[in-house]
Amino acid sequence: MGEGSRVRRPRAGIVVTGSELLTGAVRDANGPWVARELGELGFEVAQVVLVGDRPEDLAAALRQVTEGGVDLVVTSGGLGPTADDITVEIVAAFVGAELELDTAMQETIGRRVARWARRTGFAGPALDEATRKQAMVPRGAVALEPVGTAPGLVVRRPDGPLVVVLPGPPRELQGMWPAVLEAAPFAELLATVPRAEARSLRFFNLPESEIAETLRDIERARDLSDVEVTTCLRRSELEVDLHPLPGAETVAAELADELIARHRKQLVSAVGATTDELLAEALLEHGLTVATGESCTGGMLASRLVDRAGSSDYVDGGVVAYSNEAKTSLLGVPAEMIAEHGAVSPEVARALADGAREKFGASIGVGITGVAGPGGGTEAKPVGYVCFCVTTADGQVLARDPVLPGSRGDIRERSTDLAMHLLLRAAGGLPH
Amino acid sequence: MGEGSRVRRPRAGIVVTGSELLTGAVRDANGPWVARELGELGFEVAQVVLVGDRPEDLAAALRQVTEGGVDLVVTSGGLGPTADDITVEIVAAFVGAELELDTAMQETIGRRVARWARRTGFAGPALDEATRKQAMVPRGAVALEPVGTAPGLVVRRPDGPLVVVLPGPPRELQGMWPAVLEAAPFAELLATVPRAEARSLRFFNLPESEIAETLRDIERARDLSDVEVTTCLRRSELEVDLHPLPGAETVAAELADELIARHRKQLVSAVGATTDELLAEALLEHGLTVATGESCTGGMLASRLVDRAGSSDYVDGGVVAYSNEAKTSLLGVPAEMIAEHGAVSPEVARALADGAREKFGASIGVGITGVAGPGGGTEAKPVGYVCFCVTTADGQVLARDPVLPGSRGDIRERSTDLAMHLLLRAAGGLPH
Repeated sequence: MGEGSRVRRPRAGIVVTGSELLTGAVRDANGPWVARELGELGFEVAQVVLVGDRPEDLAAALRQVTEGGVDLVVTSGGLGPTADDITVEIVAAFVGAELELDTAMQETIGRRVARWARRTGFAGPALDEATRKQAMVPRGAVALEPVGTAPGLVVRRPDGPLVVVLPGPPRELQGMWPAVLEAAPFAELLATVPRAEARSLRFFNLPESEIAETLRDIERARDLSDVEVTTCLRRSELEVDLHPLPGAETVAAELADELIARHRKQLVSAVGATTDELLAEALLEHGLTVATGESCTGGMLASRLVDRAGSSDYVDGGVVAYSNEAKTSLLGVPAEMIAEHGAVSPEVARALADGAREKFGASIGVGITGVAGPGGGTEAKPVGYVCFCVTTADGQVLARDPVLPGSRGDIRERSTDLAMHLLLRAAGGLPH
Repeated sequence: MGEGSRVRRPRAGIVVTGSELLTGAVRDANGPWVARELGELGFEVAQVVLVGDRPEDLAAALRQVTEGGVDLVVTSGGLGPTADDITVEIVAAFVGAELELDTAMQETIGRRVARWARRTGFAGPALDEATRKQAMVPRGAVALEPVGTAPGLVVRRPDGPLVVVLPGPPRELQGMWPAVLEAAPFAELLATVPRAEARSLRFFNLPESEIAETLRDIERARDLSDVEVTTCLRRSELEVDLHPLPGAETVAAELADELIARHRKQLVSAVGATTDELLAEALLEHGLTVATGESCTGGMLASRLVDRAGSSDYVDGGVVAYSNEAKTSLLGVPAEMIAEHGAVSPEVARALADGAREKFGASIGVGITGVAGPGGGTEAKPVGYVCFCVTTADGQVLARDPVLPGSRGDIRERSTDLAMHLLLRAAGGLPH
């Protein structure tokens, strides 16, 4: 929805290093995490660049993200003890500062490493070398206390962006973030950032093309150029994010209201809450508990339900009844029912839901049985055919049996999504 | 391990578009997937750039990845029907070609969209507009049949790289890949790529600093500059990838042998197989089946076991026994045992394993119970304390009770990793 021009949000670039990211061996977790944090602070993330561990590639990436004119560059990774960990050297060259041994930091790292070495039995010259390497700091940089063993850095390039150097392991990077916010040069930059509240809406089963048409239609009547709208299909839910420029918050709020009014039937949340959050709230609010009876999803739904801290207050447990015998012996699905209707059938989904609810003494039971593929499909029950049933102690029954598209993994994930949505509906957590 | 210079592998850049990737709302799946495919074809991926949906940012990213001198650029995303889907326009400008309506493609898309519209009830001008937009193709490009509704493109920039344009949904992107390989301009480029076999080793519980020291030690005795070594900690396993330049395959093989000889105790696989693959093989080979009794992992282990197609041959099922009542009623864990030792105890882990094995009639049972946090920790049993037990029908017992670091999610994932490793050990799948 246009560029807007009234107020410029400061731009940031993120450089994530690690050759393993370029071989596809690993998916980057740090880029998205840092991007979200920066977005919430009011920065606009211009790009995320993933580069390997070669010195010249990292140096080129720093130049690239800077070329577009950014105020901040955040790097992750390459602070470890191995020869391919070269970020500090490259950043020092990029900001034009000499590397110095920070002896206080060397001691700090030494103490941290010693604890770990005692536990694992590794020690000796490899450790000493690693410690010294990780204590080298560019002159003028603010060094940040390690969370693992590598310190982070905040350092300014003369007439250029502020550069924040963070470790690669997500736990260490995230653990160091509060120290970044407190570092004086970062706090100074942050003080210049205008804050604008973004709005986030969620819809279930609404195609992107419909939202696009709605937006075009609204734009004929009014100027939306100061609100940037992004849409994104995620876990079967369409997330619509409205980012107003400072001053355009009212336009964004009115646009949000209009989108909600036009697509109320598909609305999951008007305030960006996820199905997972809403379900937890609804279960807690009404004092309900859930038990699962899963076949094709194989525990994915139960695992997702217990993702959240405190889930023991509303999750009793579940059975992964992968074999027919397990369906019968653990959840009481009659063997004759399986013989008559097949293991993948609305009848068995219902029996799994009832069985789980009763065995665990839960308020809500959910049953899922389907053909996840790639084999096992028939004409009547093709790959992707999945039967769902949610039953409640007070007699509600919600059933679905769609044919879901995609790979085995896709089908299992979409099944989990749909089950979460049905649970939310059964728990009374949808807006109406 | 040095740059090498004998033979240059052709370089590729990957540009992934989508503003949702820069707000951190979504993690990119396409960059890693394309990177792995290109790596296996013999390309060296120089960088992956994630940019938003603004025309000027995408155009800048195409210039950037090209600057380093690449032979191939692959883009993903931005082919959809909404106004922020602008990839084709920008790529057309980048290669200097006019956009033309491909009427045959318009019909193809129209047919695909019609099926979907009938099913969902959406139709009308929004759909017609979307169809026409998605059928615009730069002159001279090879258009690739849509997997969803958007066609892909293969087009050469005069005196520049070959550009491959793919849709954003991972299922569509992956489904279109075979057509990319068959497209004439891509096949021509591929014919010029030297192939070198990479070696991949996996170790469990081996710190990166130890491998670094081993590599430094070996390098004192011999020249490893034609073998690029990357290490990567993934799912508690250290993956060590050896990428020889063409001609250096023997050096890489000898280096692999040396690394294996020095760290044999921690070796999981000498041929890059994952624990998941090895476990499936071992279970099938010995005709064994697994059942799970999970508390803190909440189904994550069962779900991971059934990730693989054909897993019904070796997974019987599992119980997510989140509450104490469920542990007792579903898996026969004595209530007195829980009262005496606590729900998180080696005793209960063993009873969960035995209970799961017996209830499901499996050859191997695995029990996991732990404090995933963030609350619930005590001095004796802190957050991260997790008890594991694997028992087999023939009397093997493997037990562990480490304190695992990290967040709730980390602890649950590491627990799943360790359980998989113990299962592999119990199934006789480790190299010795």
